[in-house]
This record gives sequence, C-alpha cells and structure tokens, in this order.
Amino acid sequence: MTVVKSPLPESARQVTGDALQSTLVDLLGLSLTGKQAHWNIVGPRFRAIHLQLDELVEVARSYADTVAERAAALGVPPDGRPETIASALTLPGAKDGWMRDTEVVQLIVETLEAAIARLRERIDAVEQHDLVTQDLLIGLTRELEKQRWMFDAENWPRD
Amino acid sequence: MTVVKSPLPESARQVTGDALQSTLVDLLGLSLTGKQAHWNIVGPRFRAIHLQLDELVEVARSYADTVAERAAALGVPPDGRPETIASALTLPGAKDGWMRDTEVVQLIVETLEAAIARLRERIDAVEQHDLVTQDLLIGLTRELEKQRWMFDAENWPRD
Amino acid sequence: MTVVKSPLPESARQVTGDALQSTLVDLLGLSLTGKQAHWNIVGPRFRAIHLQLDELVEVARSYADTVAERAAALGVPPDGRPETIASALTLPGAKDGWMRDTEVVQLIVETLEAAIARLRERIDAVEQHDLVTQDLLIGLTRELEKQRWMFDAENWPRD
Amino acid sequence: MTVVKSPLPESARQVTGDALQSTLVDLLGLSLTGKQAHWNIVGPRFRAIHLQLDELVEVARSYADTVAERAAALGVPPDGRPETIASALTLPGAKDGWMRDTEVVQLIVETLEAAIARLRERIDAVEQHDLVTQDLLIGLTRELEKQRWMFDAENWPRD
Amino acid sequence: MTVVKSPLPESARQVTGDALQSTLVDLLGLSLTGKQAHWNIVGPRFRAIHLQLDELVEVARSYADTVAERAAALGVPPDGRPETIASALTLPGAKDGWMRDTEVVQLIVETLEAAIARLRERIDAVEQHDLVTQDLLIGLTRELEKQRWMFDAENWPRD
Amino acid sequence: MTVVKSPLPESARQVTGDALQSTLVDLLGLSLTGKQAHWNIVGPRFRAIHLQLDELVEVARSYADTVAERAAALGVPPDGRPETIASALTLPGAKDGWMRDTEVVQLIVETLEAAIARLRERIDAVEQHDLVTQDLLIGLTRELEKQRWMFDAENWPRD
Amino acid sequence: MTVVKSPLPESARQVTGDALQSTLVDLLGLSLTGKQAHWNIVGPRFRAIHLQLDELVEVARSYADTVAERAAALGVPPDGRPETIASALTLPGAKDGWMRDTEVVQLIVETLEAAIARLRERIDAVEQHDLVTQDLLIGLTRELEKQRWMFDAENWPRD
Amino acid sequence: MTVVKSPLPESARQVTGDALQSTLVDLLGLSLTGKQAHWNIVGPRFRAIHLQLDELVEVARSYADTVAERAAALGVPPDGRPETIASALTLPGAKDGWMRDTEVVQLIVETLEAAIARLRERIDAVEQHDLVTQDLLIGLTRELEKQRWMFDAENWPRD
Amino acid sequence: MTVVKSPLPESARQVTGDALQSTLVDLLGLSLTGKQAHWNIVGPRFRAIHLQLDELVEVARSYADTVAERAAALGVPPDGRPETIASALTLPGAKDGWMRDTEVVQLIVETLEAAIARLRERIDAVEQHDLVTQDLLIGLTRELEKQRWMFDAENWPRD
Amino acid sequence: MTVVKSPLPESARQVTGDALQSTLVDLLGLSLTGKQAHWNIVGPRFRAIHLQLDELVEVARSYADTVAERAAALGVPPDGRPETIASALTLPGAKDGWMRDTEVVQLIVETLEAAIARLRERIDAVEQHDLVTQDLLIGLTRELEKQRWMFDAENWPRD
Amino acid sequence: MTVVKSPLPESARQVTGDALQSTLVDLLGLSLTGKQAHWNIVGPRFRAIHLQLDELVEVARSYADTVAERAAALGVPPDGRPETIASALTLPGAKDGWMRDTEVVQLIVETLEAAIARLRERIDAVEQHDLVTQDLLIGLTRELEKQRWMFDAENWPRD
Amino acid sequence: MTVVKSPLPESARQVTGDALQSTLVDLLGLSLTGKQAHWNIVGPRFRAIHLQLDELVEVARSYADTVAERAAALGVPPDGRPETIASALTLPGAKDGWMRDTEVVQLIVETLEAAIARLRERIDAVEQHDLVTQDLLIGLTRELEKQRWMFDAENWPRD
Repeated sequence: MTVVKSPLPESARQVTGDALQSTLVDLLGLSLTGKQAHWNIVGPRFRAIHLQLDELVEVARSYADTVAERAAALGVPPDGRPETIASALTLPGAKDGWMRDTEVVQLIVETLEAAIARLRERIDAVEQHDLVTQDLLIGLTRELEKQRWMFDAENWPRD
Repeated sequence: MTVVKSPLPESARQVTGDALQSTLVDLLGLSLTGKQAHWNIVGPRFRAIHLQLDELVEVARSYADTVAERAAALGVPPDGRPETIASALTLPGAKDGWMRDTEVVQLIVETLEAAIARLRERIDAVEQHDLVTQDLLIGLTRELEKQRWMFDAENWPRD
Repeated sequence: MTVVKSPLPESARQVTGDALQSTLVDLLGLSLTGKQAHWNIVGPRFRAIHLQLDELVEVARSYADTVAERAAALGVPPDGRPETIASALTLPGAKDGWMRDTEVVQLIVETLEAAIARLRERIDAVEQHDLVTQDLLIGLTRELEKQRWMFDAENWPRD
Repeated sequence: MTVVKSPLPESARQVTGDALQSTLVDLLGLSLTGKQAHWNIVGPRFRAIHLQLDELVEVARSYADTVAERAAALGVPPDGRPETIASALTLPGAKDGWMRDTEVVQLIVETLEAAIARLRERIDAVEQHDLVTQDLLIGLTRELEKQRWMFDAENWPRD
Repeated sequence: MTVVKSPLPESARQVTGDALQSTLVDLLGLSLTGKQAHWNIVGPRFRAIHLQLDELVEVARSYADTVAERAAALGVPPDGRPETIASALTLPGAKDGWMRDTEVVQLIVETLEAAIARLRERIDAVEQHDLVTQDLLIGLTRELEKQRWMFDAENWPRD
Repeated sequence: MTVVKSPLPESARQVTGDALQSTLVDLLGLSLTGKQAHWNIVGPRFRAIHLQLDELVEVARSYADTVAERAAALGVPPDGRPETIASALTLPGAKDGWMRDTEVVQLIVETLEAAIARLRERIDAVEQHDLVTQDLLIGLTRELEKQRWMFDAENWPRD
Repeated sequence: MTVVKSPLPESARQVTGDALQSTLVDLLGLSLTGKQAHWNIVGPRFRAIHLQLDELVEVARSYADTVAERAAALGVPPDGRPETIASALTLPGAKDGWMRDTEVVQLIVETLEAAIARLRERIDAVEQHDLVTQDLLIGLTRELEKQRWMFDAENWPRD
Repeated sequence: MTVVKSPLPESARQVTGDALQSTLVDLLGLSLTGKQAHWNIVGPRFRAIHLQLDELVEVARSYADTVAERAAALGVPPDGRPETIASALTLPGAKDGWMRDTEVVQLIVETLEAAIARLRERIDAVEQHDLVTQDLLIGLTRELEKQRWMFDAENWPRD
Repeated sequence: MTVVKSPLPESARQVTGDALQSTLVDLLGLSLTGKQAHWNIVGPRFRAIHLQLDELVEVARSYADTVAERAAALGVPPDGRPETIASALTLPGAKDGWMRDTEVVQLIVETLEAAIARLRERIDAVEQHDLVTQDLLIGLTRELEKQRWMFDAENWPRD
Repeated sequence: MTVVKSPLPESARQVTGDALQSTLVDLLGLSLTGKQAHWNIVGPRFRAIHLQLDELVEVARSYADTVAERAAALGVPPDGRPETIASALTLPGAKDGWMRDTEVVQLIVETLEAAIARLRERIDAVEQHDLVTQDLLIGLTRELEKQRWMFDAENWPRD
Repeated sequence: MTVVKSPLPESARQVTGDALQSTLVDLLGLSLTGKQAHWNIVGPRFRAIHLQLDELVEVARSYADTVAERAAALGVPPDGRPETIASALTLPGAKDGWMRDTEVVQLIVETLEAAIARLRERIDAVEQHDLVTQDLLIGLTRELEKQRWMFDAENWPRD
Repeated sequence: MTVVKSPLPESARQVTGDALQSTLVDLLGLSLTGKQAHWNIVGPRFRAIHLQLDELVEVARSYADTVAERAAALGVPPDGRPETIASALTLPGAKDGWMRDTEVVQLIVETLEAAIARLRERIDAVEQHDLVTQDLLIGLTRELEKQRWMFDAENWPRD
C-alpha cells in the first residue's frame, strides 16, 4: 500500500525521484564540505572566504530542504542519512586539517563544477517526465553557477 | 610548525580537542537524522513533529558551529566531513523510507539520551583541563535535555 | 477598441486567458474552502490543522492575485465574482457545519489532487502559446503539490 | 449532542448567530468584489484606486475571520462556502470585464452604503442578546464608514 | 486624604472597583494555571497544547495589567499579591504533578467557562456605573470566549 | 448639495458632529500644551516627565486624527485650524516660559481632569444618536484616564 | 537668575531666539493647516493628496520639535501655545469646511512659498550670530523647498 | 511507572528538583510582588520605578519558565499553583494599597537580598549533583544581583 | 587564457552572452529613462506616477544586476558603461525637460512594449543553448509585462 | 510660462542649476562605473571589493536622486538621460572586459579624486547664490572623500 | 611618501587635522567619563540619569568614529590611544568612586560646556580651510548643545 | 557607611573586585586599541580587517559594561577613567600613525594573547570566592579566544 501518493505516473516518478535523490546527496555533501572549509581555512583571505562559505552553505542547506520535500511530494522518501551521503557522494571533498585559503577556493570551484555538470544532465533527464522538478533544478543550477563564478573570480591569476 | 596556536598546554589541548571532536560528530549526526525524520514522517502528528524537528536541527547546527569553532580556537582542526561522520557516529540513526510519527518520537528520544550520556562524560573529562570548554558543553547539555523532555512528553503513554 | 493591449497574438491570448481564468476560479474556491475548514474543524488535531489551513489559504490568495494580474497583463479581464466562482467551480467543496479533523484532512487532499490534475493539463495547453504563463503555472503546481503532500502525510494510516 | 457549547442561552444564540452569519456573507462578498475591481480597473486614477482597494480587501478579510470565529465561539458553525455567498449575497456587485475608475469608485461607495445600513440594523438586533457581539459589529461599522468616506471623497464632484 | 483621585462618584467607584479586583484575581489565577499546565502536560498533543497554553497565558497577563491599571486609574489600589490570589480565587485549578493532554484541555475549558460566566455578571453590574470599564470587560470576554472555543474544539469527541 | 453623505439622520448627525468637533479641539489643545511642557520643563524630574509628555502627545495626536476622520465619515467637516483651537479651547493651558517639573505635573493632571469630565458628558449625549461614535469616545476616555492616573501618581504627596 | 544657560552671548541669543521662535510658529501653523486639508479634501485626487499631506505634516512636526529644542538649548524658552500660534501666524491658512483637491494643492503651494521666503531671511539674519542655528534652518529650507516642488508639480497646468 | 525519565540518578534528581522547585516559588512570588508594586506605587519617582519594576518582572517570569522547564527535563513536575506559592513563599511581600516610591525601592531591595541569599545556598547544594542546574542558578544569581544593585543605587542616601 | 570559465560550450556561450548583454543595455536604459521621468513629471497625477516609476526603476536595476551576474557566471564580461548604453540602446527614450503626466505614461508603455518584444525573441534564441538563462528571461518578461499593464491601465481612455 | 517656479532669482537659479546638473552627470557616471567594476572584477580581493563597490553605488544613486530633486525644486529640469551622461561625463571610466582587483581600486580612487575636485569648485561657485545647495554639496563631498580614503587605504603599498 | 593622499593643500590639511585630532580626544574622553558616571551614580534619580548617560555615550562614540574617519580621509592619521587621551585631555573628569546623582549632572554640564566652547573655536579656525569639516563640527556642536540643555534642565534649582 | 551593599563577605569582595577592575582596564584598552587600528589600517586587506576590528571593539565594549556593572553589583565602584586606563594598562598597544594590515593583525593577536593569559589567572583566583563572577570571566574568555583564532588564521603563513 502506498504511503504518500504521487501525482506522477510510475515511470516518471522513478526517473524524477532518482534525479532528486542524487541532487540531495550532492547538496548535503556540499554543505558539509563548505562548513569543513569554513572552520579550517587559514591565510590572509580568511575572513572574506570564511563568510562567503557560510553563504554557500546556506544555499546548499536551503535547496537540500526544497529538493527533499519535492521528492516527498512525489511519493519518493528522500534519503539524507550520514551513511548514505558518505557512500553515495562522488563530488570532490576536503582533506583533513587546516587548509590554505587558495586551496579552499580551488576545492570549492572544483566541487561546484562537478555538481553543476551533474545537474545539467538531470535537467535533460527529467524534461520528459516532470517540468515542475525540471524548473526546480534549473533554479538551483543558476544559483550554483553564480556561486562558482564568485569563487572562480577570487581565484585569479590561477596558481 | 603550528598553524593556529593554542591557549592551552599540550595535554589539555588533546583531551579537550577529543571531547569537542566527538561532540561535533554527534551534533552533525543529530542534525542529519533530524532532517531525515523531518522529511519522512507520516501520521496524524505530522505537522507538530515536523516543525519540532526543525527546531532540533537548528539547535544541533548552531551548536555544531560553536563547538567546531571552539576546537579551532584551541588549535585543533575540527573534522566534520561526511566520511568522518559516517564512520565515527555511534548514536542511533533513522531507518530508510517513511516513518510513523510514533516511531520518529521514539527514535529522537533515544538518540538524544545517547548524546546526553556521552556529553555528561565529556563534562567530567575536561573539567581539569579547560573550564571554558566545560561551560560550553554544560550549556549544550541543558539544551539537549530540554529537547529530550519535550519529545519524551509527546511520547506518553508509552507504546 | 481594445482596453488593455496584449503582448500575445489573438489565438495565444485566448488559450492562455482560458487557462488563467479557470486557474483563478480554482484558487478562489480553494481559499474559501480552506477558510471554511479553518473555522469549522473540531477534534484533537484542531490546532495543528487550523494553523496549516491558514498557510494554505495564504498560498491560494497570493497566487490568485498573481494569476489574475497575469491575465490582465495579457489583455484578458479576470473574473473572480462570487457568482462566477459558484457556477464555474468543479473542485470538491466543504459540507455544511462542523467537521472532524480527519474529514478535513481528507477533503483538502482530494481538493488539492483535483486542482493539481487540472493545472498539469493547463501547463501542457499553454506551452505552445506563452512560456511566461507556463512558468507561472509550474511554480504554482510545485507549491500545491507540496501542500498536498503535507496534508497527505497527516492522513496516515488512511481510514 | 452539541459540538461546540455556547456561552449564550438558545434564543440569544440564534439571533446573534444570524447576525454574524449574514455579516460574514457581506464581508466575503465585499472582499471578492474589491479584488474584482482591483484587477479590472482602468483609467487615470488606476494606481491610487488599485492600492486603496487592496486596503479595503484587507479590512474585509480580516473582519470576516473575526466574525466567523465569533460565530464558532458562540457554538454556531459559520458558512462561507462559495455557493452560500453566491446565493445569500444581496449587496451590489461588479459587472463583467474592465471598469472605468469612476465606475469603480461609485460601485464601492454603493456597496459600502448597503453593507453599513445592514450592519446598523444588526447592531440594534443583538443589543438585548449579546453585548460582546454588538461591540464587534460597532467596531466593524466604524471601519466601513471610514472606508466609505474615503471612496466618497474621491467621488466629488459627482457625475 | 485620597491618594489617587477617582473620576467616578463614590458608589460607582466601589461597584466598579469590586468588579475589576475580582477580575484581576481571576486573570492572575488563570495565568498561573495556564503556566502550570504548560509545564506539566504529557501526551501525543504535547507540543500543540504546550504552545496554545502560552498564548492563553499571554492574554491573561496582558489583560491583568490592563485591568489593574484601570482600577488604579479609578482610584482603587489593585491587589494581586500571592496570598490574595490563593484565598480569593474560585476558578477550578490544576492538580499536582504531570497531566495528560486530554485532562489539560478539559481543565482549561472548565476554567474558562467559569471565568466567562463571572465576567458576564460583572458586565451587567457595572453598566449603570462606568461604561468605560464595561467596554474593557466586554473586550476581555470576547478574547476569553475565543480561547474557550479553541480549546473546546480540541476536545471533540468528548470523553 | 451634500459633499460627503452621512450614514446618520440629520439630527443625529448634528449632535454627534458637535461632540466630535469639541473633542477635536480638546485633543489638539492637549497636544500643543503637552509639547509646550515637553520643551519648557526644568527640575530634577526633567527626563522622566519630558518622555512621559511625549507619550501623552502621541496619544492626543493619534486620537485627534481618529476623531476628525470619524467626523468626516459622518459628513461633518472637522475644523482644526489654529484660530479655531485658540478661540474654542476651554481647557487649562500652559503659562509662558520655563516651568518647574512639579508645576508641569499639576497642570497636566488638571487639564486631563477637565478633558475627561467633558468627554463623559459627550458619551451620554451621543448614546441615543450613534453607538459607533460613543464607542470611540469611550476608548479615548479610557486612555486619558490612564494618563491622568500616571501623572497624578507622580504628584504625591501633593504640594 | 538664568534658568537654562546659553552658550551664546546675549545679543546673539536674542537674534537667534527670535528666528527660532517665529520658525516654530510657522511650522506648528503648517502642521495644523496640513492636517485640516488632510481631513477636508474631496475630489478625484483625494487619496494621493491625502497621503502626501501626512508626509508634509510629519516633516513639519518633526522640525518643530527640533527647532523648539534648539531654542531651549540656547536658553530661550520656546512658545508653541495655541493662542501664540493663532496670534503670531502670518502664513495663509485653510478656509472652513470641505475643500476641492485643486484648491488644497494651491493653498499648500502658497503656504510653503511664504514659509520659505521667511526662512531665507532668517538664514541671513542668524549668519553672524550662530552658525549652528543657521545650519538647522538651511536643512529645513531644503526640505520645505522639496515639498513645495512636489505640490507645485501636481498643479500643472495651472488653473 | 515514570512519566518523564530523568537523566540523573535518583538522589541527584531529588536534591536538584528541590532546589529548582523552591527557586520557582521565589521567582513567581517575585513576579507577583513586582507587579503589585508596579500598580500601586505613588510619588515623584513614579515613572522611573514603574518602568524598572516591569523589567524586573520580565526577568522573574522568564527565569521562572526556564527553571520550571529544567525541572520537567529532570523528570520533576514543577509546581507553580497559586496555593503553592502562597503557602511556600518566604520572601518579604508587599503590603496592601498604595505605596510610596521610597517604600517600594526598599521592599524590592530586601526581597532581592533574601532571594539571592537562598540562591547562593542552592548553588552549593547542587554542585555535587548537577553542574547543568548549577550553571543555570549561577546565571540567575548574576541577573538578580544586578537588579538588586540598581534598586539599591536608587536608595541613597538611605532613609 | 580564459579568465572566468564557462559551464557552456563555446557556441552556446556566445548566443546566450549576446542575449544577456543586449538585455543588460535595455534594463540600464530603462532604469535611466524611468528616473528621468520620475524627476521631470508634472501634472495632476504627479504623485501616483512619481511613485510608480520608482518601483519600475527598482525592478530594472535589480534585474540588471541579475542579468549581468548571469553573464559573468557564463564567462562573458558584461558591459554596462555609459558609452555602451548610449550607443547600443534602441528603446524609446525621454525628451529633454519637464514632461506632462500623460506623456510620461505613454512613453513608459511604449518603452516597455519595445523591451518586451525584444525579450520574447531572446527567449526563443537561447532555448537550445541554455535553459537556465531562458528561465531568467522568462521571469523578467513576466515582471515587465505586469509593469506595462499597470501603466497601460492608467492610460485609458487613450488620447 | 514657467512650469515649476523657482525660489531663487534667475541668475542664482542658473549658477546653481549648472552646478547641480553637472553633479548629477558625475554621480550617474560613477554609479555605472561602480557597477561595471562590481561585475567584472577578478582577483584574490574579489569579495571584499565586490561588496565595497555596491556600497559606493548605493551612495552615488542615493545622492543622484537628492541632487536631481534639488534641481527640480529650484525649477531646473534635471537631465540624466543615457546620451547626456555619455556625452557630458568627464570622469575616468572603466575599460572593457574583466579587470584585476588592483586595477579596480586604482580606477575608483582616480575617479573619486576627479569627482571631488569638481565638487569643491562647485561649493565655491554656489556660495553667493544658494546656501541650501551648497550645504547639500558639502555633505556629498564628505561622503565621497570618505569613500576615496577607504579605497585608497586598500591601495597600499602603491604599485 | 604619502600613505593616504589628502584632497586639501598642506596648510589646510594641518589646521583641519589639528581641529579634528583635538575633537577626537574630547569625544573619547567624554565617552569614558560618561560611562564612569553611568556605572558609579547613586541617588534617587539613578535610573533616569543612568539611561540618559548611555545616550550621551552613544553620541560621543558615534561622532568619535565620524571625526576620526574624517581625519583619515584628509590624510591625517587619527590618534585615539589611551596614553594620548590621558595626556591630551583638558576637559573636567570624574572623581574616583560612587557619585551622587546631583554631582553627576553638574559634572556632565561642566564637561559639555567646556567641550562646546572648544568646538566653537575650531568652527572658526577651519572656516577658511575646509567647509566640509566645518559642517561636521557644526553638526556635532548642535548635538552637544542639546545634550547640555537636557542635563542642565535636570539641574534646576541649582544647588 | 557603605554606599552599595555587597552580597559577598569582605575578603571575597576584594579578590573579586580586583579581578573585575583589572579586566575592565584590559577591555577598555582593547576597545581603544581596536578603534585605533580600525582608523589607521592600510593595505590590500583594509576592508576585511577594518570590519573585523569593529566586531572586536563591539565585543570589548559590551563586556566592559557587563564587567563594570558586575563590580558595582558587588559593591565595588569600577574605575574606567582615562588616566586609570593609561596608567594601569599592561597589554601591548598600537604605535602612532598608519599601520600596515599585517602589522595590525599581529598586534591584535598579541594583545588578545596577553589578555587571555591574564583572564585565565583571574578565573582561578576567583573560584573560591564567587562562582558568579567566575562564570562571567569564563564566557568572556571564550569570546576572546574565538576572536584570537580568527585574527590568527588571517596571519598564516606567518611573516
């Protein structure tokens, strides 16, 4: 017996649910990586990057909530448990211990590039199945591409 | 060469750093479990518990930040990466998929009880080493014990 | 002589105008049904549902304004008069008098399901005629599907 | 068996309940008429009247809530369903389509005059039965008379 | 020698002063009973009722202040000391220790019913003496009758 | 030809209009006297009374607006011109130049007593003609009696 | 014996005090005239001018306070009593009763022009005596000239 | 069967529970005494003390809530009923009727001194049993000692 | 060597970059034209249109920022320099000097119509290249079409 | 026939009007240059300068409004059209494309220096003609000199 | 080599820099004296003066920041170090230990009088050199003269 | 005769009073040094450090108030006069004139290290005498250690 009914037909529900679940993992991973860098950054740009990372974490957390609740609204129980994130996450992550500010900026640019590439694939994947979810992923992509630019602009001239 | 200098002597730094690091893991785990339940809860108390869980997550996230920054202030780089949480977390966690409201309440009460017991041990452990960290853990314990009571009061008469 | 000029060609104006007008009727109907339930609900979940219904009414009223002003912007005078709502509304409505909380939840889930199904048809209908209106309807659908899930989650195990 | 008990004796409950129910219908009708005019007004005073109408709608919606909850508090389930409004409403209403600003002002003045005259009768009717409800209707009358003056002052010299 | 002069003649001052003083005792008693229940409630509706009780306490405290300052403005020193409340209070009160949520709802409904009945008598008593005080008591009655309905609606079907 | 139509019959309009017009003069006079004292007070209680006077002025200005707009709503053009206030004002006023704090308190108490006595007569006068205006005057009386008490309590033991 | 000491020599104190006292009278007169028009205006621009007048009154009241407190700071007791305003005011004033919107705009433009001309004379008069007061009058002139322009722009083409 | 489980062993629960319960009685008594004085004070310092008493009441109410919820969190049902306060309160209280401002200041200083002395004993009593509760009582003592100083400073030179 | 990397392939980057750059010029031009009208408008609708123009300017400025930052995020440096706007702008502009209110409304309607027509072409142009940018342009079109309607509704009956 | 009358004699109107018009051009140019740099900056100080530029733009826009409205208040229609800015602007401007952070800081310092030098000349020019305008230009100069210092302090040691 | 360039010629820079530096010392001294009195005051006016002193400290701190940043903007490094204040301060200061309220008021009046006299000299001194700095000092003088009046008004009748 | 009574025995009062007085001097010194650096800093990190210093100053000022009022509450008059700070301060201070950003960061780190070391000694010193004061110093130490880390993290790699 179905717990939460889906407004989508079954095949659409599966494709869309997969796209949302893997986006959720990426966003939770991004929020944890962002906080790790927020705490461990050192170097002359400490304050500027420390604050900018908190804005990124805020974006990631807020979209994680939206994405997970969209999955639930489609009858797909979202999975954001620690063991799921650890095993399913494929984005680059932080190393252990203190990190130089230049390293941090580079890591965040790379992590965002990977997340964006994966999102653009999902935007195509869901197009035939659920325009509502597609619209949500488009909005998220815009936000992450803006974040990526702002960290990339910090990063010039490149090392 | 030391990156961030500690105001504590080395042995105090180690004991206190360990207490803070394991508290950080507990709090990040708690925040992820809380969100998992927030998204997957079903049952007639959906709305009341759904909102209460967000307050718990807010407490956990805010104290995680405070605890991690306290570690950094003591010259101990905090570790909140997904793989660290997944491997180091010993608190009870959520199962996969939808959860009945009564199950959720029970899970949160048990998770909080385990977290509180571990905190009370750390309060003793750091007493000889850093009263400042002890004071922080005492405040956190008060907050979690209040949360535990409020979920426990929901839970009566017990199943 | 045209009163308010439309930025759309005539056939697009008609299709889009129809979609917006029938969405307006659904939203005004939903806001009145939501208030009716808000006032007449009784039962142990009174407070939780009473408050949740006001959030639903707020969503319906705010989108009704947006939808009607979109129609006006396309040169189509919107019609939200009481007699129009009463005669054109096809969504399920409230019965007379006090209502048990479980009944209320069921009614709202059914009303939202009907409204969502009608919206998804209109999203298809306007696609060839006005992407701007389609985008508006997609955003509204996301909001109503989220509301539907939250009432449906209250509704478990189903009677 | 009574669902919600009344603090009034039965005859007082009936008279007062009738006064509140018909006031509710007037206020919901007024809020829908106000929005209809808000969306369909054209003419050089568009902006001034468009904004003033939203203030009127806010007054009508807020008092509709107060009046309906007063009925419920007296053990009388309020009825604000679309079909009830359409069949019971006796106030003047808007015509279909765009409306000149001067027409709108005239319509609102007439609608408010009719609503006020009916309210003053109900203030007399409930005096012997419930001073608390009377006090509520007096406050509402003050608010509507102020609104009426402000639209009437716009209306000079009369056409 | 009079300390604070009264704008009322002596007999009116006495009748009105008595009405205000006994209302003050009822409101202070209600605020203490509300808090007692707020702290001691257990059961599946813990959170909903716990929050609703704080709104009731806020109403009682705020009106207690208004009522006491009205007495002072009439040259009657108000008496809200603990021993006065304990000896003069005739409203139902809480029992000792934890209380089930259903019990709490029932207790609050009964306490409010008693308070309302007493207020309606005082509204009659002061009518010939001070319309200003009467108006204040009418407003308070409206607020308490609304609170009573909301707790009573929680209480259905009655045990 | 009538400019703003009245919801009252002519005789009621005259009695009520007179009551509102003389109340308007009293309130504007009170606000000017209050400011005069606010600027010219000297003595050890300067700061406390200086601030309290601004609260009194705020009350007087806000009610003056309400009273004048009530008159307009009844089709009676209010008159708050300087020459009208100067010639029609019968309340006690401030003397020229600096004033001791004790003098100020005494003056305000006397001015408020005179204003309250006149208001209580108007409450009786309008009762048969307009309950809505009466309700407004009752609310104003409550506010001024509270202000009077607070200045009178400052004034003890009396000189 | 001096009550409040002046930071200025006696002759400067007199010239500056006169400039401030006559400015105070103008501002209080302006605030009363503005309110009179705010209440009595009729015509199709009712709402726009009604709101704009309240902004003018706010400017006049706020500067009246500043000007009076500047006088007090210079050891000159300010005089803002009703009889002083009535006898000393030389600015144009409102006629009795309802006023057409065009008349109101014209009256305000003329009143502001007269007030500005008088202010520019005082700016010259105080220059040799107190630059601090001059600076205050310059700021006030800027504000009134802005208000004059906004009413004058309403007034085109002139009748 | 235990209703709310305690995180403390039984003996610690009893000692800590007693300390919290008697603190609760003191704080509720203090809040009622503070309000009594707030309403009945007369004299030239009326306004200053009237406002300061409301800040004290706010402190007392807010800590009463914290203390009672701490007791509940330890599995000890708090008791704040009127009869409990009246019988258990040992702090000095207000006399009946109007009070001179100097009397009020003296009463509050004495009441706070008694409350502080009792708190300092409880801080010692709970030290071996619950550092979390001790920390809460320490914070409360700091707040009350600050309040005591501010009333005592008013009180100089002593009568 | 690329400064800011683009998430798009080169051809998509060019088409999308051109669409964003020309939208940026339109929006900056619109914001300057809007302010020019805001400052130079005269006539009886001065205040209403003066305020409405500031809302339009706010929309144009806020979207200009979003559009320029979207270009930057795609690796395309935006160009909003004065000489670029002056040479590239093709929208209708304001004439020199004072403008009648009717002229202003007409100018804004025409400017918005031209801007909207150009935006609808760009929505088509970018569809194959970047759905994220398309979504942004759709949202902007909705906002400008709403603004156009509101100015057009002011404009009736047309001259 | 004059549209908006000036409070100044004709020669003063011309001198002051010229000073305001050229200040307006400088401020609009500065706001466009500031935004251009805000969007195109790259380098390790990206975030700090990106945010600081928005504060500068806010200052420039806000003063542009004040300056233009001052011109209008003097009967001089301000001219802020794109073609006017492009042809009349003499301040240094941004180059095309991405800019290094150090370049940006240098550009802004030079632009502000040029603007300040021009403002100081205008302060002298208007002194004999309008002290009110002079006061406005003095305040603007203070703000721009503060901005200049803050960018200059960033710029050390100079390249 | 100059660190921060000055917009003034060298001689103007020196005169203005001296005026700002000595004003900075006065303001920092005033803020420390104000706090000293805020903490050490005793007597029946404790509360009124305690609060008023904090407003004075806020004024002094805020202007100290403005004055110091003005110096920096003129290329003059401000000096606000403890040893500089202690050696350069010539204003009256507080004695050690508790102070009676009357003493405090007298001290503040004298300190403000001295500060104002020194400011008026600097206003003359900088007139030929920098009108921008003069305008800043004029504004500060106005504020301090207002503060002086308010403390002086407390001080009557003088001891 | 004692002015403000102490809740502590004399010896505890002395030890605790000394700890608070020397903490007050450190905090006032820190706030002045922080402002000195805030005004005189130059270099590419100007903006980031300029803002961070204001947060440090805010912390220092706010704790200085708390510490001084704690002393007063213990019957010890706090001494924060300029000459006391200058003579008693032992923390490192700023040099005269402009300071490079790297110098500033180093100075602040050293000043905070010295202040923290002294605080940790005082935490031990007061433990036997006043747990309330100890708790206050612990909280302050936490805040300063966090500030120290954030400046130290800026400082890497060390020069």
